[in-house]
Amino acid sequence: MSDSSSAEFGVPLRVYIEDTDAGGIVYYVNYLKYFERARTEFMRAAGFGKRTLLGEDIMFVVHSMQVDYHRPAELDDELRVTARVSACGRARIRFEQRVLRGAEEICRADVSVACVDPRSRKPRALPGEVRQRILSGAT
Amino acid sequence: MSDSSSAEFGVPLRVYIEDTDAGGIVYYVNYLKYFERARTEFMRAAGFGKRTLLGEDIMFVVHSMQVDYHRPAELDDELRVTARVSACGRARIRFEQRVLRGAEEICRADVSVACVDPRSRKPRALPGEVRQRILSGAT
Amino acid sequence: MSDSSSAEFGVPLRVYIEDTDAGGIVYYVNYLKYFERARTEFMRAAGFGKRTLLGEDIMFVVHSMQVDYHRPAELDDELRVTARVSACGRARIRFEQRVLRGAEEICRADVSVACVDPRSRKPRALPGEVRQRILSGAT
Amino acid sequence: MSDSSSAEFGVPLRVYIEDTDAGGIVYYVNYLKYFERARTEFMRAAGFGKRTLLGEDIMFVVHSMQVDYHRPAELDDELRVTARVSACGRARIRFEQRVLRGAEEICRADVSVACVDPRSRKPRALPGEVRQRILSGAT
Repeated sequence: MSDSSSAEFGVPLRVYIEDTDAGGIVYYVNYLKYFERARTEFMRAAGFGKRTLLGEDIMFVVHSMQVDYHRPAELDDELRVTARVSACGRARIRFEQRVLRGAEEICRADVSVACVDPRSRKPRALPGEVRQRILSGAT
Repeated sequence: MSDSSSAEFGVPLRVYIEDTDAGGIVYYVNYLKYFERARTEFMRAAGFGKRTLLGEDIMFVVHSMQVDYHRPAELDDELRVTARVSACGRARIRFEQRVLRGAEEICRADVSVACVDPRSRKPRALPGEVRQRILSGAT
Repeated sequence: MSDSSSAEFGVPLRVYIEDTDAGGIVYYVNYLKYFERARTEFMRAAGFGKRTLLGEDIMFVVHSMQVDYHRPAELDDELRVTARVSACGRARIRFEQRVLRGAEEICRADVSVACVDPRSRKPRALPGEVRQRILSGAT
Repeated sequence: MSDSSSAEFGVPLRVYIEDTDAGGIVYYVNYLKYFERARTEFMRAAGFGKRTLLGEDIMFVVHSMQVDYHRPAELDDELRVTARVSACGRARIRFEQRVLRGAEEICRADVSVACVDPRSRKPRALPGEVRQRILSGAT
């Protein structure tokens, strides 16, 4: 593991009716909610709940993403959604993320997140300690 | 029409995939989004966009509601969602709302909305002009 | 406990960004997703996952509900959502449900659910064993 | 315009509370709902409502997408979401899509959609007439 990537972190989740659509499967949009849950828990495991971050005048916003859908997930499925930091720059973090059902990959995303000031929404550098803990804390 | 109720106001809407669930019909939760769209457009027609209201230090929050589901709405349906003020008190507005498909009633709600201060979230009286225009403006 | 009500059943949940709105709190609509998660887990604990029910030609649909909002829940809050069967008729189940933050009640609902045939969507009687286990299984 | 791309098609939309998050802006996930609304209306303008497609044993599923977020959209904003077919293969359609506020680009996506059989979910070729009308009908 290089000094700007982390181990893979994961959280379990269950597919509820709220996640599905008339096609009988998880609505393609809702995987992005799953991905954000994993990033949020990754940050929390690294010591940074949303409120802690706001206290540090930091907010993360998604800047861009590439998402690939491999197989449909269904009602009642027990899934695992993961987050791994693949690169951590001055004001940008890149996450590799997956939704898994057992060993089977359902969906995969490469998400680029920008660190901004909560008021101005302008990019700002990640404080050194935050960067440090993101790279080591959630492993 | 008494002096504390309004005429029925309505907006058209289309059912999209995002609104449905694995049962193939509109997810029961999503009718509440429709109801809020109608209340929002009702208020806008009365002269009060969300930002105007915030400028007046007013925010509306749902206090309680009774919802009855009569028939399922389906993908691609063209619906009409309505809002009618059935009572307007000092700091509380009561809306009668319906989701219709043609003349057929899909869903009905009785929604009680409280007027609060956006910062403290404490109840506050509706300014007289707001109350006036709610009762006459959106008819 | 009478023979047509159950003990209170609960599941923990965390408030994520996906649950909030521009007011900075949980969007009033999303509590209904929480309530459904609790009803689903209640049924699963009683031995009836969604697929088991479909195998028995049963689907549950919400018929009506009364919801009361007491306090706003916020981002990162750890909540508990409960379900208790308050009445169980021939083809109708009534749930009393709450969203709690510690001992504090955030939201409360009284939800009437109808048992229907998944294809015709006509009401059908709850099979005796389902009714039995609903009343005893999830306690 | 080449023979495998279309003109840009667009639909207006309003940002409601349901679309926002605690950051006070449109939740990043919800732009994908907007994009799907535009693709759906594009297909409808080409003569293919969802039910028509199901009647032809066709379902479209998102296969992959690249999304870039440029600026935040806010409550009450009047937006326009567009769809343009940039390529149309045997069983795959590629859409270029944008969310605009006036002339300002809020968000952009490149969405690859696969044509599948609704039951087997296996890829199937687009019928010639569907392909034809997708390329000419919604211009």
